Amino acid sequence: MTATPGLGARSLASPGLLRSVFRRHAAGVAVITAQGDGGPVGFTATSLTSVSAEPPLLSFGIGTGASSWPAVSEAGHVGVHILGEHQEALAGTFARSGADRFGPPTVWREGPEGVPVLEGVLAWLVCRVVARVPAGDHRIVLAGVVHGDSSGEGRPLLYHQGRFNTLRD
Amino acid sequence: MTATPGLGARSLASPGLLRSVFRRHAAGVAVITAQGDGGPVGFTATSLTSVSAEPPLLSFGIGTGASSWPAVSEAGHVGVHILGEHQEALAGTFARSGADRFGPPTVWREGPEGVPVLEGVLAWLVCRVVARVPAGDHRIVLAGVVHGDSSGEGRPLLYHQGRFNTLRD
Repeated sequence: MTATPGLGARSLASPGLLRSVFRRHAAGVAVITAQGDGGPVGFTATSLTSVSAEPPLLSFGIGTGASSWPAVSEAGHVGVHILGEHQEALAGTFARSGADRFGPPTVWREGPEGVPVLEGVLAWLVCRVVARVPAGDHRIVLAGVVHGDSSGEGRPLLYHQGRFNTLRD
Repeated sequence: MTATPGLGARSLASPGLLRSVFRRHAAGVAVITAQGDGGPVGFTATSLTSVSAEPPLLSFGIGTGASSWPAVSEAGHVGVHILGEHQEALAGTFARSGADRFGPPTVWREGPEGVPVLEGVLAWLVCRVVARVPAGDHRIVLAGVVHGDSSGEGRPLLYHQGRFNTLRD
């Protein structure tokens, strides 16, 4: 792969153009968790995507300035949770700076590999982190599926133009 | 970053678990294009995500067995198009094996850097490829924004549980 240093100088377009294009895009909403030295951490992500079937890999992005980054930068495993349309408040809690993300009303338990697992989601996975790829002011975390459950029912929570939404059908 | 060789042996879960979890996830629909030696190529992607603001970077996944991969593996630039809810047929054309993707009724032109740009989309970008990160049977393509337009109007096309959908509101 190509290294990223020097990208800034060669990028011709503004962050504003990227932002305005992605305001027209919609994404599913996930919460990523990890066990840090100081306790559980987690954040709301709209960048979760399935990457590879063989082996089963997924990825998500995290800013290097995010409060969860110190823990995620060292974590061997992470939790990945697909939120349902009824979980807008949970998504807000894990997006809001300074919120007590794991206090009530958040319901969670220590899951496989010691990873915090949130209750009531559509599906969750515990994944082993296999790479943290530098990408400007973020890292792309690549992780392999180790454990999980997909028995939740309901429609997914979506994010579009700065607010939560859900599917029409 | 960590290299990926050996991942397969250490991955404990099946592709089926990853697939069933991501069936509960929803994603926006994009078409990625590139100019290949043999003419324009393109494919429908549900893995497009914004990655970094500074510099402005995005990413998408592509299988190394995909018909577009030989061109995308060598392309200096790619086109990224956000599809609207009215473009289900276009998404189908760029997903269907053997389809004439750039023949009628597809409307396109040669855009900046010689990249094929599709007409009628919600927004498009021409991006410079900065990395192709190995990830199992796929590559994560990381690209920096160079040109684009986000003046299209309408709601985005979504993909969920194997079919197209759109936003409720």
